[in-house]
Amino acid sequence: EHIPFSHTRYPEKEMVKRSQEFYALLSKRRSVRFISNEEVPMEVIDNVIKTAGTAPSGAHTEPWTFVVVKDLDVKHKIREIIEEEEEINYLKRMGRQWVTDLKKLRTNWVKEYLDTAPVLILIFKQVHGVAASGKRKVHYYNEISVSIACGLLLAALQNAGLVTVTTTPLNCGPRLRVLLGRPTNEKLLMLLPVGYASKEATVPNLTRKPVDQIRVTV
Amino acid sequence: EHIPFSHTRYPEKEMVKRSQEFYALLSKRRSVRFISNEEVPMEVIDNVIKTAGTAPSGAHTEPWTFVVVKDLDVKHKIREIIEEEEEINYLKRMGRQWVTDLKKLRTNWVKEYLDTAPVLILIFKQVHGVAASGKRKVHYYNEISVSIACGLLLAALQNAGLVTVTTTPLNCGPRLRVLLGRPTNEKLLMLLPVGYASKEATVPNLTRKPVDQIRVTV
Ligand SMILES: Cc1cc2nc3c(=O)[nH]c(=O)nc-3n(C[C@H](O)[C@H](O)[C@H](O)COP(=O)(O)O)c2cc1C
Ligand SMILES: Cc1cc2nc3c(=O)[nH]c(=O)nc-3n(C[C@H](O)[C@H](O)[C@H](O)COP(=O)(O)O)c2cc1C
Repeated sequence: EHIPFSHTRYPEKEMVKRSQEFYALLSKRRSVRFISNEEVPMEVIDNVIKTAGTAPSGAHTEPWTFVVVKDLDVKHKIREIIEEEEEINYLKRMGRQWVTDLKKLRTNWVKEYLDTAPVLILIFKQVHGVAASGKRKVHYYNEISVSIACGLLLAALQNAGLVTVTTTPLNCGPRLRVLLGRPTNEKLLMLLPVGYASKEATVPNLTRKPVDQIRVTV
Repeated sequence: EHIPFSHTRYPEKEMVKRSQEFYALLSKRRSVRFISNEEVPMEVIDNVIKTAGTAPSGAHTEPWTFVVVKDLDVKHKIREIIEEEEEINYLKRMGRQWVTDLKKLRTNWVKEYLDTAPVLILIFKQVHGVAASGKRKVHYYNEISVSIACGLLLAALQNAGLVTVTTTPLNCGPRLRVLLGRPTNEKLLMLLPVGYASKEATVPNLTRKPVDQIRVTV
């Protein structure tokens, strides 16, 4: 069944202004790896997750689960799993080229932010669904859909004045899934530590490509 | 080299308000498949693409190309390719289950919006890069990174009062890549027709999962 779509339009001048302001807001986003232990309002966390849940998804399957971890012990267990696996990643699994490509970021396997950030959000993609009948439901394009939802989540965090770093803890998915009691149809896609930047936070001195290098007009 | 990070913080009340307003804005987003042929301000298109280009990416590889198509003939050629392939998709490649799962959306292989939308944005992921030396550069997590960028693009379009529908034209990537003269390291990830909703636009009467079904707290 279809229903009429009601379109919110703005005058052209306002469209230009809104698009400039949104660009200005998001262009200040950086991946921050130094997060203070100050608490954040949980209502904001709820709202950013609700925002992520507005994402489009293949055949409207909404194939995402957002696990919000606040418990200190669970955060610490997550840190232990990730540091153990990441040490092996850096020393063996990633290989020399990958480690070289990460030098400019000065990342390594020590992840203090996993203890200090007041909230960790672990995003799982549901690689298939389960119908009420117990039958498998296909989740078309689930990784792309959940990644789009993560894009909305990152925008929402930036809009609220919170920081995070997009992380994909290599080889940690299965252990973290078991730790958090998630079902086998869910695979870890991303982990976002969320909070305020710590006072001494620094970021790699990176620049972004100018628009002419990412856009082609036909 | 690292530089100090300057954090924009808001008082708690304002964080809550900003997060509510952003949720309210994005919750009104819908995939719109009826787009009028009215022109849109190109400055807005530039700004939404610049916004997408602020996305995080694995090892800061920025593995995206946004092809903006305005030319009527090229749009029509795109439509011809997609309708030809989509007819085969619906009749043969997708299978009965997939076609059944799409029934509620009432989509088919006729894509009038590819002619009527004033702008098509085709998003390519660069599956690897090419260094100045000619050597291949690895693009870690390129599909996830580009999908996150598409999430920012969708948020930016919604913020500007434009509509689109996220599409993944199955089996059309290679022909569209050749039509647009893109190199072989670029693969089509998504096509977004962009414009204003046409007056008679309707949308499927879908609801979204409530937050308790997508969020788990630990
Ligand atoms: C990865 C992905 C692929 C999609 N592919 C198509 C497509 O090829 N054609 C189409 O009409 N809609 C497509 N959609 C749109 C979904 O059907 C739509 O997002 C879903 O029905 C929810 O509706 P909403 O976006 O209005 O919330 C796609 C969405 C995503 C995220
Ligand atoms: C898919 C993806 C995976 C990433 N994985 C990690 C990670 O495991 N650890 C980390 O410290 N940063 C990770 N990053 C963050 C990138 O290094 C960062 O986005 C990039 O250097 C650009 O910096 P910016 O986000 O400040 O613009 C990842 C980013 C993306 C998009």
